[in-house]
Amino acid sequence: MGSLDTYFALVEQNKQEFVERLREVVAIPSVSGDASKRGEVIRMGEWLQAKWEELGATCKRVEPGKQNLDGEILDLPPVILGQYGNDPSKKTVLVYGHYDVQPALVSDGWESDPFTLVEKEDGRLVGRGSTDDKGPVLGWLLCAETHKQAGIEFPVNLKFCFEGMEESGSEGLDDIIIAEADGWFKGTDVVCISDNYWLGKSRPCLTHGLRGVSYFHLIVEGPGADLHSGVFGGTVHEPMVDLVHLLSRLVDNKGRIQVPGIYDQVMAVTDAEEETYESVEFSHEALVADLKNDVLIHDNERDTLKHRWRYPTLSIHGVEGAFHASGDKTVIPAKVRGKFSLRTVPNMEPRKVAELVTKFLDDEFAKLGSKNRMQVVETHGGRWWYSSPDHPNFVAGARAVERVFGVKPDLTREGGSIPVTLTFEENVKANVLLLPMGAADDGAHSINEKVDKRNYIEGIKLFGAYLHEIAATDL
Amino acid sequence: MGSLDTYFALVEQNKQEFVERLREVVAIPSVSGDASKRGEVIRMGEWLQAKWEELGATCKRVEPGKQNLDGEILDLPPVILGQYGNDPSKKTVLVYGHYDVQPALVSDGWESDPFTLVEKEDGRLVGRGSTDDKGPVLGWLLCAETHKQAGIEFPVNLKFCFEGMEESGSEGLDDIIIAEADGWFKGTDVVCISDNYWLGKSRPCLTHGLRGVSYFHLIVEGPGADLHSGVFGGTVHEPMVDLVHLLSRLVDNKGRIQVPGIYDQVMAVTDAEEETYESVEFSHEALVADLKNDVLIHDNERDTLKHRWRYPTLSIHGVEGAFHASGDKTVIPAKVRGKFSLRTVPNMEPRKVAELVTKFLDDEFAKLGSKNRMQVVETHGGRWWYSSPDHPNFVAGARAVERVFGVKPDLTREGGSIPVTLTFEENVKANVLLLPMGAADDGAHSINEKVDKRNYIEGIKLFGAYLHEIAATDL
Repeated sequence: MGSLDTYFALVEQNKQEFVERLREVVAIPSVSGDASKRGEVIRMGEWLQAKWEELGATCKRVEPGKQNLDGEILDLPPVILGQYGNDPSKKTVLVYGHYDVQPALVSDGWESDPFTLVEKEDGRLVGRGSTDDKGPVLGWLLCAETHKQAGIEFPVNLKFCFEGMEESGSEGLDDIIIAEADGWFKGTDVVCISDNYWLGKSRPCLTHGLRGVSYFHLIVEGPGADLHSGVFGGTVHEPMVDLVHLLSRLVDNKGRIQVPGIYDQVMAVTDAEEETYESVEFSHEALVADLKNDVLIHDNERDTLKHRWRYPTLSIHGVEGAFHASGDKTVIPAKVRGKFSLRTVPNMEPRKVAELVTKFLDDEFAKLGSKNRMQVVETHGGRWWYSSPDHPNFVAGARAVERVFGVKPDLTREGGSIPVTLTFEENVKANVLLLPMGAADDGAHSINEKVDKRNYIEGIKLFGAYLHEIAATDL
Repeated sequence: MGSLDTYFALVEQNKQEFVERLREVVAIPSVSGDASKRGEVIRMGEWLQAKWEELGATCKRVEPGKQNLDGEILDLPPVILGQYGNDPSKKTVLVYGHYDVQPALVSDGWESDPFTLVEKEDGRLVGRGSTDDKGPVLGWLLCAETHKQAGIEFPVNLKFCFEGMEESGSEGLDDIIIAEADGWFKGTDVVCISDNYWLGKSRPCLTHGLRGVSYFHLIVEGPGADLHSGVFGGTVHEPMVDLVHLLSRLVDNKGRIQVPGIYDQVMAVTDAEEETYESVEFSHEALVADLKNDVLIHDNERDTLKHRWRYPTLSIHGVEGAFHASGDKTVIPAKVRGKFSLRTVPNMEPRKVAELVTKFLDDEFAKLGSKNRMQVVETHGGRWWYSSPDHPNFVAGARAVERVFGVKPDLTREGGSIPVTLTFEENVKANVLLLPMGAADDGAHSINEKVDKRNYIEGIKLFGAYLHEIAATDL
């Protein structure tokens, strides 16, 4: 693999240029959850398509249709499908990524404008999307550009699928993957997704499991309009009072889900699985340092990892419709919507989860004896994913990590959800490898999101190494 | 009182002009709780001062100082003090009102722009501030203007005090009232405040009691920044989970406050008080019609009134810092701030209430065994007010009601809080009458706030009649 050394050297030589390229894409505020930014999301998709076409790829822009966002009818951002190389003697790798990002406002607590990439002295590249998922998506492009620049033959046929709605439920994507499974994606040997994170900050990992997510809105409504608490406090059933009672019954303070039946569906821990927790690089010390405060529920690393990877959990995200600004307002909100989600694991079924959650809340609401109306809506139900790390796709990934970083990767599962993983596996019928670029402390979805320059640059090398390893592997 | 009939006739003749005058003041969006509207609040105060000065009043603009609102340092809106007439042979009436309003956005659900007064066919004058409290504040001005226009001698010396921070805790006002008690307000015989509402929609009332309000922020913070629920759900103590547990323990679903000791401070109901509930015009039927849905806790009018007037209540207003927008976001908020308030009654003391609430929440938080940090902040503690309806000031008010409406007024207490009532009573040392203009269904603090044209026009007559009655009364 002498050509790979040439590739590594050129990546190293280009690294400052690659930071500038990341700055360019971070500057496009492609927030899929914000109706006013929809044009920017679409612009970001078009930017990607144009760059790949310049390089010689064949692209297809697929329009997933329309979306009703807060009453506004919007075009969904395009899914950009691509094919780079079409040599029947080469293997075909399909990569997926997303070019949309989470919302970000300076007022959320960012140190600087979220859409202006800032390179810090400690190596952080701070900006919304830097790690989730613009760094990786751009990484595949830079990998191909650098091969061309170096005059190295690209080792595989690359297909790609870049979407712009990942942070908003990947609306429309599943249908496209299903429709293109025997079309654009035909001939795919393996799939690689880079949209997750290392377990820690120093050792790379390959990820072979993900939790699912079931998202719920718990809606309580009573009077026809908001009321003055001076006049109506104590004489009407307040929707917000019902809501906090119901939310408080979902989960206890130690993270135990109180919905009957939920844990019955969880696969038991085997001895073999217990062993895998021995070797991974993971410490509470580093975790607490990232969290700034020790707010960990469990007193040992193994329990923390189990509750991240293989047990279901329930988080309460917020309330829509109540008073949420600063200051004091003496309102009784007429209609409130509590948002919570469960992370699900083998062998939980989203439909069963929704049934159990709805029944539990119906029962608890009946106990309250409130005259308000209550409704539970499952807004999203994505399944978990689990794959064997012995598949050649993972073996190739592990070799690539050793080539670039000189260490064996951790084999991890993730607490988060990347529903598309399962969709690709089931429809394209190819093994999926999750090959993260970013580190545990990147702060995806949070303020001051960053990717470390090391992860970004070595990650671009890793993508190249992985493709060369796949080319050399019997699948 | 022949001159009063002349006054009534001229008010009747001017009524469409008076609607236009209300339109002019509603159009100034004097939202005191919104930093970006502070200039409009000040402009509204200046408008009032200018109009009174045109009429011949002597005014004094008092600056209460500065305010820190969301980190921005703002000038507090001026308190406009005025004196209209200074005849030692006449009695002196001090009127108070506020020229600021609650926030209002079309997106809250208003039928039309909240700052454009709309006259409906059913007689509603819809606009933010129409009833709370621009209608009444303007009413005093129109009362004086109309006397002048009719050539009727104004029956009293009128002092006024109009503030621009009532909807935001009347910051700075108490100090000014205390400082001016023996200054600008010296010589005041009685005080009249029109900033509340009839009990129903048809019969006017005089109000002789108000509840106090103690407002609390319950702050829970844990990790240094917001977290991704996929990665951290189930492994950290979520501030939002602690918060809903604590909020749910404050009050049960039947409105009973769960804080030990709160009810010990409440004055017992006497037989004499029981009798007063017999006569008032108040029906659940009308109340439910206003509420649109029957969400009443109590099954009879008397209990509803008692829980509005003379029992403490606790309302939960919302959560700051959690996810509050539409859609789905899988965030674990790092710091959340629950907002709730208690309405307080004789003989509760705000200091004692804050102590009991804080101790209860400290105890409950300790039971949770959370590693997060919790803090209770009392942001406001205003006392209740109670006055005898036999005072000559109330007798004059009752006569004025009979003169204008042909009925005896209900004698009511209010569930809401007008803390300034107590401040005037204690410092200016004069009896205070609450003489409402608006009706029960006006929707102050809510969407589609309105004042009925009848209430507005007859209210302007009532103000005049009241001043003439005061002139004729032995105080």
